[in-house]
Amino acid sequence: MIRKLLLATVVSAGCTGAIAADMKAEDAIRARQSIMRVVGINFAPLAGMAQGKIPFDRNAFAANALRLESVWAMEPQRYFVPGSDKAVSGSKIAGFTDARPAAWSKPADFKAAFDKNGKAIQALAAAARGGDQAAMSAAVGEVGKACKGCHDDFREKQ
Amino acid sequence: MIRKLLLATVVSAGCTGAIAADMKAEDAIRARQSIMRVVGINFAPLAGMAQGKIPFDRNAFAANALRLESVWAMEPQRYFVPGSDKAVSGSKIAGFTDARPAAWSKPADFKAAFDKNGKAIQALAAAARGGDQAAMSAAVGEVGKACKGCHDDFREKQ
Repeated sequence: MIRKLLLATVVSAGCTGAIAADMKAEDAIRARQSIMRVVGINFAPLAGMAQGKIPFDRNAFAANALRLESVWAMEPQRYFVPGSDKAVSGSKIAGFTDARPAAWSKPADFKAAFDKNGKAIQALAAAARGGDQAAMSAAVGEVGKACKGCHDDFREKQ
Repeated sequence: MIRKLLLATVVSAGCTGAIAADMKAEDAIRARQSIMRVVGINFAPLAGMAQGKIPFDRNAFAANALRLESVWAMEPQRYFVPGSDKAVSGSKIAGFTDARPAAWSKPADFKAAFDKNGKAIQALAAAARGGDQAAMSAAVGEVGKACKGCHDDFREKQ
């Protein structure tokens, strides 16, 4: 049992694999967009529950919150590699990156925004493990703020 | 401790959220592509370790294998909604779906392929929890076969 728990904890520790320095821009863009979309898909029902738009379901909440923690541990910020700041021509995702130049020109701010998000997500997962509905809902709000804060500064308006 | 473990197990149980019947094709395509890419990002180092191309790292293996299990529980097959079988015009991913018509015209085969993949991924996660390197590597091979089998039949050649 303890071994299983330890392994489950490892999930949060990340280590998806090294990012090659010569990773193609298209691959980097698709990787970060994919991770962020998976984050969004998991976050949406949590926001719905916290806002009372869908019924609160403790198990479903926990499943999504812990998956969010695990996926965030893939460290999407690693995929904002040099050269992936512009639309990629001749690819399936031609013309498609919503990242703003500030993600590269203000690396300290960008890192701080990601770190804030990571802490909020860890707190959300902790709340989900705790099981208190009010704490879980409050933690969703903090994650939402962190997401929005980073998007406001580093993502083009949708 | 036991409570944490139980919650960790919930991750595998899925429940990301309901799929709206009127989900836009673009959103469905991007959701399934994102999930699959996150699966691929996590699988790649496992394949590398199993094939001896990168050093075996038990903790890194477990992190990725358990995340793979958790992400697969999002049930990507749910996003092959009606109407999402063709390229989406006027969107950021215009012209971009690799799914073959067979994914819709042969639903029983498609479901069987997904189920096979799900079982292989669960076995991989179980092997990762067990911690035996030979079993872990063998399980990677089975997942790889299941992935390839589904791609051969239901995805355009890359």
